[in-house]
Amino acid sequence: MASTRIREARESDCGDIMRMIRELAEFEKLSHQVKISEEGSLVVGYGLYYFIYSTWTGRNVYLEDIYVTPQYRGQGIGTKIIKKVAEVALNKGCSQFRLAVLDWNKKAVNLYKFLGAQDLTESEGWLSFRFEGEAMRELAGR
Amino acid sequence: MASTRIREARESDCGDIMRMIRELAEFEKLSHQVKISEEGSLVVGYGLYYFIYSTWTGRNVYLEDIYVTPQYRGQGIGTKIIKKVAEVALNKGCSQFRLAVLDWNKKAVNLYKFLGAQDLTESEGWLSFRFEGEAMRELAGR
Repeated sequence: MASTRIREARESDCGDIMRMIRELAEFEKLSHQVKISEEGSLVVGYGLYYFIYSTWTGRNVYLEDIYVTPQYRGQGIGTKIIKKVAEVALNKGCSQFRLAVLDWNKKAVNLYKFLGAQDLTESEGWLSFRFEGEAMRELAGR
Repeated sequence: MASTRIREARESDCGDIMRMIRELAEFEKLSHQVKISEEGSLVVGYGLYYFIYSTWTGRNVYLEDIYVTPQYRGQGIGTKIIKKVAEVALNKGCSQFRLAVLDWNKKAVNLYKFLGAQDLTESEGWLSFRFEGEAMRELAGR
């Protein structure tokens, strides 16, 4: 395993993080959805060769994304990130954390299962819905 | 449609909100998962006869739950809540909001679709994963 240190992201990581968001979106075949605002959304995060940005809501944590730059893969960095999240989550009094994964991303799916995650879509039937763009504006009466 | 006012939750709503969390968990057949801590997790919320608690993470919003007390259903209150969320989300500069729904909850699924939401599990293959309890503690080395 590489000698890696998991740390919170700093403002000076923003350039790298933006690059990784674009790389990840390309991997997920969702590049058309990347619209990064100036303010960014990475207040809470961990960075270096990878990042996550997460949201803490009482007892739940949502991991938005976990991404490892291709040349640093296969070194257990993803696992290290998830372990760190578990540690931070427990420290914050959270009882669980959730993340979303694309069904064809078998490597990620298998890793999460190996680490003890439960596939809630399979076991409980949870579906993920999104409102955006025109639908949101219409709802808001704009 | 009932004369309802959508407003943010106050501390004095906590009792009602706790009750609704339990009712919702019962409806979702997930009562065994309800463990409410003293501190609660409802800093951001809207309440009255219903509640949501949401998390703002830059450009995404996650709606944790939408719940309407049974005797107030069928009056468009769920729709009103979603419209309010769209409005608040746009005001905050968010470009989308997401929510999770159980596949057998056809009434909710149909409402979200009617209001313009996209089923991401169906259209893009997003699965929802959860780490909790023993798996979390093991990851954190405790």
